[in-house]
Amino acid sequence: MNILLADATEVTGDMLEVTGDRANHIVKVLRARQGDRLRCGLINGVMGHGEIIALNEKHPRRALIRLTLDTPPPPPPPIDLVVALARPIMMRRLCSQLTSLGIGELHVIDTARVEKSFWQSSFIKEKHYLEHLRRGLEQAMDTRMPDLRCHPSFSHFVNDTLPGLAPRYQAMILAHPGAASSLETLVRPGHRYLLFVGPEGGWLDAEITALTSQGCSLASLGDRILRVDTAAISLHARVSQLLASGISL
Amino acid sequence: MNILLADATEVTGDMLEVTGDRANHIVKVLRARQGDRLRCGLINGVMGHGEIIALNEKHPRRALIRLTLDTPPPPPPPIDLVVALARPIMMRRLCSQLTSLGIGELHVIDTARVEKSFWQSSFIKEKHYLEHLRRGLEQAMDTRMPDLRCHPSFSHFVNDTLPGLAPRYQAMILAHPGAASSLETLVRPGHRYLLFVGPEGGWLDAEITALTSQGCSLASLGDRILRVDTAAISLHARVSQLLASGISL
Repeated sequence: MNILLADATEVTGDMLEVTGDRANHIVKVLRARQGDRLRCGLINGVMGHGEIIALNEKHPRRALIRLTLDTPPPPPPPIDLVVALARPIMMRRLCSQLTSLGIGELHVIDTARVEKSFWQSSFIKEKHYLEHLRRGLEQAMDTRMPDLRCHPSFSHFVNDTLPGLAPRYQAMILAHPGAASSLETLVRPGHRYLLFVGPEGGWLDAEITALTSQGCSLASLGDRILRVDTAAISLHARVSQLLASGISL
Repeated sequence: MNILLADATEVTGDMLEVTGDRANHIVKVLRARQGDRLRCGLINGVMGHGEIIALNEKHPRRALIRLTLDTPPPPPPPIDLVVALARPIMMRRLCSQLTSLGIGELHVIDTARVEKSFWQSSFIKEKHYLEHLRRGLEQAMDTRMPDLRCHPSFSHFVNDTLPGLAPRYQAMILAHPGAASSLETLVRPGHRYLLFVGPEGGWLDAEITALTSQGCSLASLGDRILRVDTAAISLHARVSQLLASGISL
């Protein structure tokens, strides 16, 4: 946890009181004391620091923090992702890792090879993903929560939702083993990108046809077949590198 | 498992018999039958396919496979890594993910912020890492096992081992938040790279000084602080993208 995040509703004046996991972290991991300063921020709001005014190190742990929040969060990342719903244990990791790398929106979609029972998991049904998105922010020192949206119908997503999203993006890029295009021909600095990562077992041909007919481009990450989590991070990192390099072919 | 791997010692003539996990995978996941063909390979050897000659679908599961191995494995990856020993659960994932992305050597080193008890884990002591490296190969359809080496003394690694490794590399690159150099100034296609990823909590200043004095360059992956696993995959993917893009600044 590299930044202590709070909801605006938790703050009274400039004072924040934390208990539970955050208080435990302050005492056990940071070993902070009264008077110490911590990096703090409001979810979807400003960042800055907080001074520990009072600290109860014994159970129930509790910290009273005076906030000085005067810095805007980092700019919104230029990358959004679409991922096929994977098993919850992988989705948890993916949510926090992608959020730490920086994403604006995360669209979780159904495909033929998605295990349907995953839609009934507490990760989706009870929005447990919010906790994992938040962990990614705490890691990366950001306050801007990615907007996670669930699309349990592939055809509805492709035919009704995607056309509305498409105009925002310079390119919509689908990582696909063996695709002829290389990533560097699709990415130009200063634009937004929507990246697609399929399910374990891959997309159906019909799904790829549906996506490309809506304007998605296929790009290969090389000959090696990657697991969904590795592919998603790898694709994000590659596009980020191309954006950072300022290449314009 | 996208390729069935075997040790050369398991093969008699052109016949391979598998039991245990691999037989379970053939029956339960691939749902293969007698006469089916599977992608097969020998660890650190050739690849090709195997035909299932006989299959016992009930316990104890067992498959007899006739191998036709005539294809060399993919070329050795141009990337080696040095990682500070992390907790075993993270090392397991890191080993299989990095192997799937493609690495030649993986040097696991001690640093001041490495938890010393991790060196006593079965992951290190009993070489359980071999299983996770192998899973990465099975994922990526490769047969070439990365060479994992443990360096439980940081100063021995930096002063005695690293000078011997350095001449192989075009650059030795240490991911460090806030570094002034950007990655694209260090990477040229056609060369080998040694990438460094530090421990949770980061390197000590003295460690960075020791590494840079041996020729390591610091490069930033951006302002966001990443966890070790995200940083390692991200750095590998970014360097791979620069190598693929054929950029020469």
